[in-house]
Amino acid sequence: MDISQWIRAVPDYPSPGILFRDITPLLARPPAFNHVVDALAEEVGKRGVDAVGAVDARGFLFGAPVAKALELPLIPFRKGGKLPPETVGVDFELEYGTDRIEIKSQAVSQGDRIAIVDDVLATGGTAAAAVKLVENLGATPALAVFVIELEALEGRAALPGVETLSLLKY
Amino acid sequence: MDISQWIRAVPDYPSPGILFRDITPLLARPPAFNHVVDALAEEVGKRGVDAVGAVDARGFLFGAPVAKALELPLIPFRKGGKLPPETVGVDFELEYGTDRIEIKSQAVSQGDRIAIVDDVLATGGTAAAAVKLVENLGATPALAVFVIELEALEGRAALPGVETLSLLKY
Repeated sequence: MDISQWIRAVPDYPSPGILFRDITPLLARPPAFNHVVDALAEEVGKRGVDAVGAVDARGFLFGAPVAKALELPLIPFRKGGKLPPETVGVDFELEYGTDRIEIKSQAVSQGDRIAIVDDVLATGGTAAAAVKLVENLGATPALAVFVIELEALEGRAALPGVETLSLLKY
Repeated sequence: MDISQWIRAVPDYPSPGILFRDITPLLARPPAFNHVVDALAEEVGKRGVDAVGAVDARGFLFGAPVAKALELPLIPFRKGGKLPPETVGVDFELEYGTDRIEIKSQAVSQGDRIAIVDDVLATGGTAAAAVKLVENLGATPALAVFVIELEALEGRAALPGVETLSLLKY
């Protein structure tokens, strides 16, 4: 299935010069959404991971059904301050300022193999922080998987040593 | 299945006197998470709705797999400013200040029957805004469904005329 027909390009969003990829048409078409979830689940399933990490917020839309399909624990990787204590987190830099990603302290155990799921791989800042968080806990980021990859932003380079897959490249 | 064993009570979060219900232990246990998604999907499926609206952000964790299971369109109801144009939204009041919920303008058509899915029904402010947004577009909020309902906060009263269900009441 060619899912690109359900991804809409939005020029100059969220700021001038940025071409945003809008996934809401894909979400609105059950055959396309189910195809994407099934494809992501197939890739994650092959890696024999222990849990699925879904990145706040759009990553939840894909990571949750992937975890359900594979009957794997679902770990929300949340923006800072959204989870009750105890949490562990990693700060990372944005173009302007910093951001933080957190999980529950008990969510990942030493030696676990974690798949990280998000909708879009852009600069890779968020995904790299998720990878670092997993590594800080003595676990392995076994796979980073995305619906869309914006190749010009070279996000893959921010995830050295992590197997990185995407369903659709721009 | 008694899912309450996988909901953790967190006193004084996010502020003193608030007893927060943490769903992350539930997400981490596949039989419990899958049971909850299946139970939500069964209720939504009975209502013959046209789409599943999932509320940003924790509602995505449940709404997305429900939409997939039922092969229904998935509509993210997002916090203000998170969706590219064109959007339609509703402002609503919080204890301090206001918030906004938005969907894509094309997401809901006149006459559609929409199920709204979120993790927790507290005061009902967000859910009431989602209901109003659906109604503003000439569609019908056919069901509001939650994993957890905090009965003392009387959120149900904020959703008059909308069938409201929850799996676990406190």
